[in-house]
Amino acid sequence: MTTSRLWHGFTDMSTVRHRAPFTITRGQGAYLFDAEGRRYLDASAGLWFCNVGHGRAEIAEAAQRQMSRMAAYSTFGDYTNEPAEQLAARLAELSPTDGASVFFTSGGSDSIDSAIKLVRRFWLALGLPDRRVILSRENAYHGGHIGSTGIGGIALDREGFGELITDTARVAWDSAEDLEKTITSLGAERVAAFVMEPVIAAGGCLFPPQGYLQAVAEICRRHGIVLIADEVVTGFGRSGDWFASRRFGVVPDIIVCAKGLTSGYMPLGALIVGDRIAQPFYDGTAGPFFHGYTYSGHAGAAAVALATMDIIEREALAQNALSLETRLPDLMSPLTDHPMVQEVRTGQGLMAAVELNPQALRVTPGLPMAVVASMREAGVLTRSLVGGQIQFSPPLIIGNSQATEFVDAVLTGLNTIPPQRT
Amino acid sequence: MTTSRLWHGFTDMSTVRHRAPFTITRGQGAYLFDAEGRRYLDASAGLWFCNVGHGRAEIAEAAQRQMSRMAAYSTFGDYTNEPAEQLAARLAELSPTDGASVFFTSGGSDSIDSAIKLVRRFWLALGLPDRRVILSRENAYHGGHIGSTGIGGIALDREGFGELITDTARVAWDSAEDLEKTITSLGAERVAAFVMEPVIAAGGCLFPPQGYLQAVAEICRRHGIVLIADEVVTGFGRSGDWFASRRFGVVPDIIVCAKGLTSGYMPLGALIVGDRIAQPFYDGTAGPFFHGYTYSGHAGAAAVALATMDIIEREALAQNALSLETRLPDLMSPLTDHPMVQEVRTGQGLMAAVELNPQALRVTPGLPMAVVASMREAGVLTRSLVGGQIQFSPPLIIGNSQATEFVDAVLTGLNTIPPQRT
Ligand SMILES: Cc1ncc(COP(=O)(O)O)c(C=O)c1O
Ligand SMILES: Cc1ncc(COP(=O)(O)O)c(C=O)c1O
Repeated sequence: MTTSRLWHGFTDMSTVRHRAPFTITRGQGAYLFDAEGRRYLDASAGLWFCNVGHGRAEIAEAAQRQMSRMAAYSTFGDYTNEPAEQLAARLAELSPTDGASVFFTSGGSDSIDSAIKLVRRFWLALGLPDRRVILSRENAYHGGHIGSTGIGGIALDREGFGELITDTARVAWDSAEDLEKTITSLGAERVAAFVMEPVIAAGGCLFPPQGYLQAVAEICRRHGIVLIADEVVTGFGRSGDWFASRRFGVVPDIIVCAKGLTSGYMPLGALIVGDRIAQPFYDGTAGPFFHGYTYSGHAGAAAVALATMDIIEREALAQNALSLETRLPDLMSPLTDHPMVQEVRTGQGLMAAVELNPQALRVTPGLPMAVVASMREAGVLTRSLVGGQIQFSPPLIIGNSQATEFVDAVLTGLNTIPPQRT
Repeated sequence: MTTSRLWHGFTDMSTVRHRAPFTITRGQGAYLFDAEGRRYLDASAGLWFCNVGHGRAEIAEAAQRQMSRMAAYSTFGDYTNEPAEQLAARLAELSPTDGASVFFTSGGSDSIDSAIKLVRRFWLALGLPDRRVILSRENAYHGGHIGSTGIGGIALDREGFGELITDTARVAWDSAEDLEKTITSLGAERVAAFVMEPVIAAGGCLFPPQGYLQAVAEICRRHGIVLIADEVVTGFGRSGDWFASRRFGVVPDIIVCAKGLTSGYMPLGALIVGDRIAQPFYDGTAGPFFHGYTYSGHAGAAAVALATMDIIEREALAQNALSLETRLPDLMSPLTDHPMVQEVRTGQGLMAAVELNPQALRVTPGLPMAVVASMREAGVLTRSLVGGQIQFSPPLIIGNSQATEFVDAVLTGLNTIPPQRT
């Protein structure tokens, strides 16, 4: 074997280079295949992105068609292209915000960094440059750039870089009162925006407490603070609707999305920007927003997103997520009784997490990794989240039997771990 | 016409929404076509990216093949895929650095933000957390994220956001002495890295003074400072070689690339990281680098890059850039004599800029825009850079006749402008 030159993300490379890598060669629907042709259930939809499942010929063909006509040019100035226009219109239409404009990027982190720049420019345009602080929630994950890392709520991700971005503050993930208190102590006149994942994904699959989202939306409105919903995970059917904001009945000023938008077939992200924020830039009072990326409005990526959204619509995948949502507690009940399981977390849509028993985690800190490794042996791919939870967020095309496959694999994993003295 | 929902990058939206947008529908080689079927020379290769030209069926097919097998999964942990491995090996092989590792992203800004995080973690791992300052050059453009905007050298791009990132400093774009002086005044023990475009692109197409790059490389080596070459524009044939670093005989610690890597067919960026920086992460002393993106190691994007590099190699496009480089001064000489032209800037590779006369610019500040608009009428698409220069960076597949087409259009543009009293 020649030495691999690939540097893996979020990985201790000193451990990876000493073992054979695990090569995924092919995917079909909710399943993936390794180099030996073994089949695995993709219980995480890759990194939460593959909502429509793998190997969709129709998306690949849409990409080819657009790329052989024109993959990309530029959408700066007055330049545009049909797929980007169509996609912008379709996203604006689906968004809970009225009269939305759409700014394209190539991913989730891009969109968060863009949103931070946009809200700071917005407040400057309104003559309130002191409104600079970006609030976010503990446990939140918003991406890997300097801005999106800097506002992250997972301490480990921010360590080792020193201060990355100025003027940020974090609030408890589950308390609207804490948001209110933080705003009061900072002074609302210093707060630019509050960024929140409707359901915290990578930070542990944390569903919002009853009434939480409506309460924080009301607090932001009352203080004039820009509400940014990070729907990178929750969008495009995952939460049982096009956007979790719609599901929860909140109207963010900006919705940030990526992942499900193309189901990962091509990198693409977007900011769906409500009228309130766009207006000063559109009526000329704010001047130009000097911001953009080489691939903002990439025609090929837009064509891929349109094809992906066609599938979500035609196959009613948001509805399938909704209907699985009601069955999940039952389907996952065999796990609830396991002594090493603390809780099986389900909530809105097709996302869930198996939280292990704190006692078991204390005794065997490597437990989640071991369970995940043993699940792989049993033919199910997933990963453990920051708090050790086992992630369940398969493509939205699955039925009961794949949920059961996941449950059986977790049980196998848990029962393969040698018992520990507690 | 329905209202467009697309927010354009780097644009005053109050001007765009009042006129019909300019829709590019198709591209073939060095030419693009609008909705009425009119043909235009793409004199800028989009935003400096389309090195192999538009409408390449073979790249579109490579994308389709990989996407219908498996577009993406994850390369965190020990997961990998063949196209990402092959591409990493190929980039490491071409890089001037020995034993390089390759970290993938989806664009240029991503790669710059990643490089900033990486060098700060690197110095922490070496027990030197005070080495934090990122130096960059005046006029440099490094991207649109919080980090890449914050280290940018174009003042306009940084305005209106307040301080975006801590611990940065800028040096004169053309003076190795100024770099040395800045390091001395900050104290080398506080400087993490120096980031530089071998040829400054968006900031005005500024070729390095003779000996400049070798001198700054020597200064960085002497002070132990990490040298980061931003080859987002200069890579993949643009400068007459795979990397301008090779052309100029410097060995950066990290090469950042994007654009030409896929010629824009799919968003992709990379950090090619030399042994010196990778080692503490690979031998376990640094611990994991908690950093990565959803699409780091995207299989579809890697397949597109491999197909793009096949074309660059097979059609000897770097060599074509080299050979045009020697002919450009002659081909562009009709511009040199024009009274409104200050200088026709050529240098290494197939990139050039027509610098307008400062007097003419003072009298008619909108001159560059007017020239570009009139060139569009004449069938040539390009744009003006920050200092008003007219950009020439066509696909690397062109011959003399396209260079002449550009020159004629600039002349037409200049001569269409109503004469001004000076
Ligand atoms: C909620 C959320 N926001 C943002 C991001 C960053 O997205 P990307 O990795 O595409 O930059 C992620 C990625 O996991 C995410 O889960
Ligand atoms: C030299 C350089 N670096 C970085 C970037 C940012 O790349 P992207 O727009 O792909 O994020 C650009 C874009 O023009 C660039 O020219």
